[in-house]
Amino acid sequence: MKIVRFLKDGQIRYGLLDGERIDVLAGEPFEAIRPDGTTAALGEVKLLAPVSPPNVLAIGLNYRQHALETKAAIPDRPLLFIKASTSVIAAGDPIVLPAMAPDEVDYEAELAVVIGRAARDVAPDDALSYVLGYTCGNDVSARDCQKRLDRQWARAKSFDTFCPLGPWIETDLDPTNAPVRCRVNGRTMQDSSTSDMIFPCAQLISYLSHCLTLLPGTVILTGTPPGVGVAREPAVYLRAGDVVEVEIGGVGVLRNPVAAARA
Amino acid sequence: MKIVRFLKDGQIRYGLLDGERIDVLAGEPFEAIRPDGTTAALGEVKLLAPVSPPNVLAIGLNYRQHALETKAAIPDRPLLFIKASTSVIAAGDPIVLPAMAPDEVDYEAELAVVIGRAARDVAPDDALSYVLGYTCGNDVSARDCQKRLDRQWARAKSFDTFCPLGPWIETDLDPTNAPVRCRVNGRTMQDSSTSDMIFPCAQLISYLSHCLTLLPGTVILTGTPPGVGVAREPAVYLRAGDVVEVEIGGVGVLRNPVAAARA
Repeated sequence: MKIVRFLKDGQIRYGLLDGERIDVLAGEPFEAIRPDGTTAALGEVKLLAPVSPPNVLAIGLNYRQHALETKAAIPDRPLLFIKASTSVIAAGDPIVLPAMAPDEVDYEAELAVVIGRAARDVAPDDALSYVLGYTCGNDVSARDCQKRLDRQWARAKSFDTFCPLGPWIETDLDPTNAPVRCRVNGRTMQDSSTSDMIFPCAQLISYLSHCLTLLPGTVILTGTPPGVGVAREPAVYLRAGDVVEVEIGGVGVLRNPVAAARA
Repeated sequence: MKIVRFLKDGQIRYGLLDGERIDVLAGEPFEAIRPDGTTAALGEVKLLAPVSPPNVLAIGLNYRQHALETKAAIPDRPLLFIKASTSVIAAGDPIVLPAMAPDEVDYEAELAVVIGRAARDVAPDDALSYVLGYTCGNDVSARDCQKRLDRQWARAKSFDTFCPLGPWIETDLDPTNAPVRCRVNGRTMQDSSTSDMIFPCAQLISYLSHCLTLLPGTVILTGTPPGVGVAREPAVYLRAGDVVEVEIGGVGVLRNPVAAARA
């Protein structure tokens, strides 16, 4: 199933997407998925980010080949950082280059896990049963802040618009072997598979659930594969007018234009 | 005014505290403060954390004397990190030593700013007008994770129960010169003033509002003064059975017991 979240007549609703038709849900999709009997047309609604997360948890250096390209040691446990919940935007919304740090903004294609029911101290074998589904995520990062200016990654990763998510939540996916790709203006920049993860989804969920309660709607960005702009020679950064696409095979394509900050 | 958030008959409500009486508010206190005409008695309700924040933004090394005690350089800009919103607890709730990292859990008394209306790109001179009020915060930190095990502070600062806030929001406070104290089992461990801040509240709010939108209810933990447990010789860490008090002069006292994780 594809779960969408959308705005119609000023109301935020969830629905199941079937081709161009949306079967509208009663309430949120976490406890149960209950169509309310009405429908909407995909073309007449504004799709929102498919979830409004209480926390956006993110994992650094979780692909072997990305750890190598950044010359970082392979982590011996998941490297957690947190993105501000206010950084979330939907498919189609612009990634805005922040006025404070516009010059080294980079993409990171990631498989995003959406938690369906509260998880606390769960075992790896049981972890995937807490997942509602999967969506495409872009862990947009201001590399000047991340690498040179700040001692923590929080600012670099939390500017408004720095967490595109979408276009929908796919409930049927094997997260252990899904293609992860990023294209900028049609050029492939990242092309890998979740099979290269150091800590696969089930282990990440289990580990994080031993740190903090994963509430329904929590998003886990599971790390990015090699090919990020900062690791290229010469480095490639996002510019106003670019279009970034994150594709997760079996889920879909998350497409966002890049825009300059308003003067 | 003292704004409280509380549970009564299974409902979350806000109110104004006057002695032992609570004048219940209609809705949330962000847009406007509107008593609904009913009252409750302080003794018959369960006080909650005074806000359920969309983001908990926190600032590291913001007191000169604390930067010195940790042998860190004085930051040239605010050092932002983010605590998971799930770490928030109320006055009286136990700080639970996490099973994963129980041995080096430390207190950090902090003035907590609660944002009242959405702030984006605001000037320092205007910044305090976006504040609803102030409460006491404890930026509880697992020093083993923070200092040795992890490359980011997020896990160390985000275990469940690691962000006590309360007991209420005081709307009338001069944040430039408020006493900040911490006591463990009655012994004074921190005793300073917000006047020692490197970046005072107005500058922090302005800076952060240039990074991300500060939504109503956003909490900013403004940094801790000297006297934390990890900087003492020998180091002092929290143990089950301890009682930690954070006092902000002009606001009140936030008191939390410390408990072991359930087996």
